[in-house]
Amino acid sequence: MSVDPRILRGLRDYLPAQMIARQKMLDTIRSVYEKFGFVPIDTPAIEAREVLTGSYGTESEKGIFCFKDPDDNPAGLRFDLTVPLARLVAMYPQLPRPFKRYHMASVWRADKPEPGRYREFMQCDIDIVGTKSMSADTEIVVIMYETLTALGVDNFLIKINNRKVLNSLIGYLGIDTDFTHDVFRTLDKLERLGEDEVKKLLIAKGDPAVDQKTLPPELRCIGLSETEADKIMEFISISGDNQEVIKKLKQFFKDYPSAVEGIDELQEIIKVLPTYGVPTDAATIDLSIARGLDYYTGPVFETQLLDLPGIGSVFSGGRFDQLVGRFIGESVPATGASIGIDRLFAALEKLELIDSRSSVTEVLVTVFSEQYLAFYQDLVSWLRHSGFKTELYMGDEKIGKQLRYADQQGIPVVIIAGPDEIKADEVSVKNARAPMDAPDKQKRVTREELLSYIRSLLE
Amino acid sequence: MSVDPRILRGLRDYLPAQMIARQKMLDTIRSVYEKFGFVPIDTPAIEAREVLTGSYGTESEKGIFCFKDPDDNPAGLRFDLTVPLARLVAMYPQLPRPFKRYHMASVWRADKPEPGRYREFMQCDIDIVGTKSMSADTEIVVIMYETLTALGVDNFLIKINNRKVLNSLIGYLGIDTDFTHDVFRTLDKLERLGEDEVKKLLIAKGDPAVDQKTLPPELRCIGLSETEADKIMEFISISGDNQEVIKKLKQFFKDYPSAVEGIDELQEIIKVLPTYGVPTDAATIDLSIARGLDYYTGPVFETQLLDLPGIGSVFSGGRFDQLVGRFIGESVPATGASIGIDRLFAALEKLELIDSRSSVTEVLVTVFSEQYLAFYQDLVSWLRHSGFKTELYMGDEKIGKQLRYADQQGIPVVIIAGPDEIKADEVSVKNARAPMDAPDKQKRVTREELLSYIRSLLE
Repeated sequence: MSVDPRILRGLRDYLPAQMIARQKMLDTIRSVYEKFGFVPIDTPAIEAREVLTGSYGTESEKGIFCFKDPDDNPAGLRFDLTVPLARLVAMYPQLPRPFKRYHMASVWRADKPEPGRYREFMQCDIDIVGTKSMSADTEIVVIMYETLTALGVDNFLIKINNRKVLNSLIGYLGIDTDFTHDVFRTLDKLERLGEDEVKKLLIAKGDPAVDQKTLPPELRCIGLSETEADKIMEFISISGDNQEVIKKLKQFFKDYPSAVEGIDELQEIIKVLPTYGVPTDAATIDLSIARGLDYYTGPVFETQLLDLPGIGSVFSGGRFDQLVGRFIGESVPATGASIGIDRLFAALEKLELIDSRSSVTEVLVTVFSEQYLAFYQDLVSWLRHSGFKTELYMGDEKIGKQLRYADQQGIPVVIIAGPDEIKADEVSVKNARAPMDAPDKQKRVTREELLSYIRSLLE
Repeated sequence: MSVDPRILRGLRDYLPAQMIARQKMLDTIRSVYEKFGFVPIDTPAIEAREVLTGSYGTESEKGIFCFKDPDDNPAGLRFDLTVPLARLVAMYPQLPRPFKRYHMASVWRADKPEPGRYREFMQCDIDIVGTKSMSADTEIVVIMYETLTALGVDNFLIKINNRKVLNSLIGYLGIDTDFTHDVFRTLDKLERLGEDEVKKLLIAKGDPAVDQKTLPPELRCIGLSETEADKIMEFISISGDNQEVIKKLKQFFKDYPSAVEGIDELQEIIKVLPTYGVPTDAATIDLSIARGLDYYTGPVFETQLLDLPGIGSVFSGGRFDQLVGRFIGESVPATGASIGIDRLFAALEKLELIDSRSSVTEVLVTVFSEQYLAFYQDLVSWLRHSGFKTELYMGDEKIGKQLRYADQQGIPVVIIAGPDEIKADEVSVKNARAPMDAPDKQKRVTREELLSYIRSLLE
């Protein structure tokens, strides 16, 4: 009775060709994060249930993979890396402030899978905890820019907004603040649904016999007036270069002075970016960006790949000054951003920025005959200690099949040694990258020449 | 109402000081694996339940974190990386043979946690699938040796045995083969319980009214005779250098010719190791090594850190020719080994081979006054682009507190620039590693000198 070798829906395997490229991508991201002085941490995939559910709104519970641990405690798989960070900061007061950490790890969502949306995926988060300074938010935007640039992406736009400005909009229009997050969640659908549809959602009325606030967020009707909705649409359509937007914003809120704090924060970030080498057209204010999550309190960020408008934000974040406070009852300022690795990887594949190789091997030593195994093993060991990624062919296949294996795996250098070569302590070296009829496609070299010859072929 | 920021039993966090060292350890392991031409893969943490439970004996189910996925399929967290490999090989026939992959990822066990034993821990596995050649098993031993050496461990012993030899022991003594794995699991306790206790377990009789074979493995009594148990004890006490052990084994099994296959396999591995530079005293035959798992079919390996005899094997494996067959009903030969990262890390900490730093930052640029932020930001950006891991101090603390932060984090270079320095486009550089009274503890340098001066301090 054999078991069906299947994988559950919404999950994926990474075979070598993809995994080698993904690994390279992760290494690049890590090196940028460390260049900015961020330090790595790791936390368990499994968290106590109340650590996970205490931190988002009510709709979050259903998105969690839940189970009990062997001690019968309610537990679940983490759905992001921000909640574990908040738990960590609350639990270890000895951590420095400001605490600049990165975390590269898998998260799980018990959602309905869609194309490009998985139930298990990796995130690479950076956050700065313990300072209210806009310097920190600016650094987050700079690191977003530097990371995408290091990955070879050049046509992208970092969109910046501020929750304080959005809260001012709610306050200015006198909208019931209990619906604040409902308005933000609705705005978050702009790109997907378009302006008309979003306006319809904002003014849709629910059953008057039901208090909408008692309903779960996905069923609530906000029921704005036509005027309120128009004013919101007017607000989000404010555009222009960053300086123009700031000017128009000040004009929009001229009768609502408390909007100034959010506008100043926007202005402060925008002003500093050029000092860090971020071009003015790579990071712009976009007032329609709200981010769906409840916990943002200040600047929010999204990143759009302009050549792939449909895939959504690949690098997002913002300031969340209240999240740590849910654990220690004292507010701890924090700001950060997160890359969705699997979505970004899929995007880079589409943009042909992924170099797909299914082998890391530089040199394959073939087995002409098992009787010379000791010669090959010694050769392989020497090549490895000389720094080459070297494989000894495993198995007793004919030499033709071994060459085909090297070819399929894209291994650049293949060594063949039969009785003639071995007697002379030489080897034949096949240069897989050279054209079939090149004079040095296969060349016999001495031991003394071998290392430098291989080095020349790999250059 | 704040939530208790706690972590469930058997789980652990990695704070920066540990995580930086752990990351370095993982990088070292990865580079050795790739030096041997192994390629990375990744698979989901969540597998269909029957993929997990179909592969071990009955006792395995209780060790799995189980739940249902959103489509109501029984699912669980993987408890090792070998079962996902078998599933992968069965699912993707396009993978090359031999397939040499490595996999570095977390696994979960719903066990009772003990000191040094966690419910979530990381493994780094290497396996070669698709060849019966002892070349493959030999490479696994070589890679075990090279990996531990690269990690700076020098006093360790790789113990090699062979399940075919152990099976011959069962056959030779005429022990009921239904108890084969019970004998192996009992032998596996030798180091922990000692010879006397293990002998007692081998001869213990159960309730004669109960068929012992119907009991779960942990409750079964094997009930060997005194003579059989003595013969087993005689067998496992065979010792000496590798050649002597082979000779004594042949003598022990002189009336049981079918033992020769296992003995030949042992001999073949042992013979080749010196060619690969593995010293003869670093890898030796130990007939008491059985490995608890049911799925081993040939050579088995364990690694003992001789300076920490109590912590158990840190790098173990063996040949498992039948595991893939559970999915495709056709046997696919495979061999490999696995490092328990968290156990090894704890061991390296005890051996003081872990360099504990809580920061990756090379240069901290302090903020003398917020009014010069643009100067600092420009400096930071320039230093980062020049290749230094550079941090701008976040926050508006006094300079003394910023210097203490640098000190606590072990940041080697600290830059201070007040109005005097800024006017002259110079900076003061503090060399944290120099003694307090060193003449160049703090030095003022020009922009032109800065990069090379920092480089000299970091050397």
